[in-house]
Amino acid sequence: MAGKQKISADLILSRARFVITCDANATIFTNASVVVTAGQIAAVGPAGEIENLYRADQTIDVSDQLIMPGLVNLHTHTPMTLLRGVAENVDLQGFLEIVWDKEDRVMNPDGVYVGARLGALECLLGGTTTTLDMYLHPLETHRGAAEVGLRHVIGPVFFDFPGPEKLTWSQRLEQAQTWPEQVREITGPYVPLALMPHAPLTVNPEHLAQIAAIAQESGSLVTTHASENITENEDTQKKYNATPTELLEQAGILKHRTVLGHGVHLSSTDRTTIARRGASIAHCPGSNMKLASGAADIVGYRAQGINVGLGTDGCSSSNDLDMFSVMRLSANLARLVRNDPASISAAEIIKAATVDGARALGIDDRVGTIEAGKEADLITLDLDVPHMVPMRDPHTAVVFSAGRGDVRHVLVAGDLVIKDHQSTRVATNSVFAAANEHLAKYF
Amino acid sequence: MAGKQKISADLILSRARFVITCDANATIFTNASVVVTAGQIAAVGPAGEIENLYRADQTIDVSDQLIMPGLVNLHTHTPMTLLRGVAENVDLQGFLEIVWDKEDRVMNPDGVYVGARLGALECLLGGTTTTLDMYLHPLETHRGAAEVGLRHVIGPVFFDFPGPEKLTWSQRLEQAQTWPEQVREITGPYVPLALMPHAPLTVNPEHLAQIAAIAQESGSLVTTHASENITENEDTQKKYNATPTELLEQAGILKHRTVLGHGVHLSSTDRTTIARRGASIAHCPGSNMKLASGAADIVGYRAQGINVGLGTDGCSSSNDLDMFSVMRLSANLARLVRNDPASISAAEIIKAATVDGARALGIDDRVGTIEAGKEADLITLDLDVPHMVPMRDPHTAVVFSAGRGDVRHVLVAGDLVIKDHQSTRVATNSVFAAANEHLAKYF
Repeated sequence: MAGKQKISADLILSRARFVITCDANATIFTNASVVVTAGQIAAVGPAGEIENLYRADQTIDVSDQLIMPGLVNLHTHTPMTLLRGVAENVDLQGFLEIVWDKEDRVMNPDGVYVGARLGALECLLGGTTTTLDMYLHPLETHRGAAEVGLRHVIGPVFFDFPGPEKLTWSQRLEQAQTWPEQVREITGPYVPLALMPHAPLTVNPEHLAQIAAIAQESGSLVTTHASENITENEDTQKKYNATPTELLEQAGILKHRTVLGHGVHLSSTDRTTIARRGASIAHCPGSNMKLASGAADIVGYRAQGINVGLGTDGCSSSNDLDMFSVMRLSANLARLVRNDPASISAAEIIKAATVDGARALGIDDRVGTIEAGKEADLITLDLDVPHMVPMRDPHTAVVFSAGRGDVRHVLVAGDLVIKDHQSTRVATNSVFAAANEHLAKYF
Repeated sequence: MAGKQKISADLILSRARFVITCDANATIFTNASVVVTAGQIAAVGPAGEIENLYRADQTIDVSDQLIMPGLVNLHTHTPMTLLRGVAENVDLQGFLEIVWDKEDRVMNPDGVYVGARLGALECLLGGTTTTLDMYLHPLETHRGAAEVGLRHVIGPVFFDFPGPEKLTWSQRLEQAQTWPEQVREITGPYVPLALMPHAPLTVNPEHLAQIAAIAQESGSLVTTHASENITENEDTQKKYNATPTELLEQAGILKHRTVLGHGVHLSSTDRTTIARRGASIAHCPGSNMKLASGAADIVGYRAQGINVGLGTDGCSSSNDLDMFSVMRLSANLARLVRNDPASISAAEIIKAATVDGARALGIDDRVGTIEAGKEADLITLDLDVPHMVPMRDPHTAVVFSAGRGDVRHVLVAGDLVIKDHQSTRVATNSVFAAANEHLAKYF
């Protein structure tokens, strides 16, 4: 290209030892660069080729690093960082009793704001760039998370009862009507609209149908808990003579893009329905094992055509937001459940944690892979650490050796929100102090 | 204490936010200091009290940290860092075929030396201070690990066949006779003598009896693989009409201190025998799940009085040496296996990873807890990281939120071998380079 003018760009991540793209061919580049312009990936490929074409205002040498798409945490409750460790050695029902009691007191709008900031910081430092988050006071949660730079999907939560927020059903419906405008006001990276009925056991069929109607009108995705443990299934069956999935289908929820949190215990009919409707499962093995809820058969789900993403669940159950831990656990648990060490590959696990999560949210045209034209949600991992030496297959290394501590740089929609393991948006200690001060008032 | 002369010491770790002692009462101190003199813990307790009594040549402020005993990895093969990721998507038998082929070529004395250095560095940086290591060329392995500062237990390995080292049976016996002197020459922190028959399937009953006799004579502990998966059990049954545990018992091995690697599939008689003999199980859930070997019921084992420690296994199966990952996985897997979220506490898991591992090795009088008179094998963890905020119960935080990346300082027998996440003994990059150069010759 000698003599030709180079194309100017905002940022080049230069000479990465590997780039895991998660594209349709699971392409991995070696000695490769990624060019970012106006929040998007302008180009990715062999370093020499790319850097002959582009020049940038900022170039970061990542020759001791690996680049991969930012992780998508498909089921969490970020403000529950504040409730980390409050409910130990209990099952899901015992957990809910303890946590709901605390939420009444602690998780007011101030609490969810400081908790969301803490949670978003934990997500980003650990390589998670997008979360599907379900929590009380979604506006304050969203404000906190967006401030720290996370791509943060949340929406109004629905219960039949007033809940910790003390809202009537009609107030919840009003909240849903004004939600699109509120999300726009907070700004931050693009996120889809979402509606969040808590579970078929806590939102009756008539109310579910109303939510389905709002989803139709607003084009929102819907997320809910479904079949997390046996007791939940039994209680739902007793109350309605139907499974949670059957209730969602009957209410018309599954006609819209739906993400089912957990989905550990799904009947054969449930699975067929979920596959046919194109709904996704957010698999949360850390939480499911810790609460002894069971082990979802994600290999079987995938074989039936169900899209499966990965999630941490909230910090009061699982007890952190570490998607690297969830990737490794998902791979190991699938092997145990299927009694087959070849049941799911490392590359498939990484796709579940990135582009399949994005697909569940309907944003896989924007994020989840490293391809020109996508928004730049990227992370880099240090390779000069003993557990990554030697490194044969990068997919295997990411799933079975890497950890959140290896995450060095994080970009969300082209913004360098974590640089050299530090937030560029917030002072870490002030985030910790705000969380601890809030808790000191209530605990 | 005004006016009194303070006792001089080598090092004070000053004002830790928490000290997890792992003593018999599971004592946790807050705002506490640990005093180290001549390799031993001179005192531990409330900072004010301790620092009125002691002054030291070196004081490290750990007020943003937690102190706990160094972790004991009770089953690993450290030089196999070099074979990280060579055998993916295979079960134990497929794994052994691939790995044994590589070992013939790659794992010569030079290879095990550079692999052991890399493995020992990974161990120490991740908070592991003691390993029970089984590998070829134990002398070179031991030299490599001891150089980096690890408390490293290894010993001669036995197979009926010549193996990658091409040794006759009588050469293996000779190696065992000279082993005590060789260990003494290498020096390093105190470790017990050990003998390492590979497995009852690869060491015949007569040979096992010979090893038992050498153990008797030298006072060595014995470690071997036992009942790692169903196929191993079936093959042993077919060949000898006995379980691996029964063969070990018949040969007199279990009369000596024994550590059984894996022990996933143990009959009820096996368990009774192991408990009666005071043998220990090295539970390796990461490896067991990844190879689809099964899930050991450690809660049941413990209830029968079997001592259970934790291990990573080698990097070619599991694929790193991260004991934090193993602690969390052990806790989660036990809950799943028992269908009971209260089946094992975080404090019990930490004990399994520290003092119970030390007990398995017969060195719990020296290491495994933070008590005056013990050798100073200690680690500190950063607490000013988002996943440790807020921190309610330190035991819970260590098992369910902490990770190897949080390990800041590491002491082995009073030596500060890791300071601020860096080895004080070896240049990290030279360790990586040596590993990669060795591999470049053979791969």
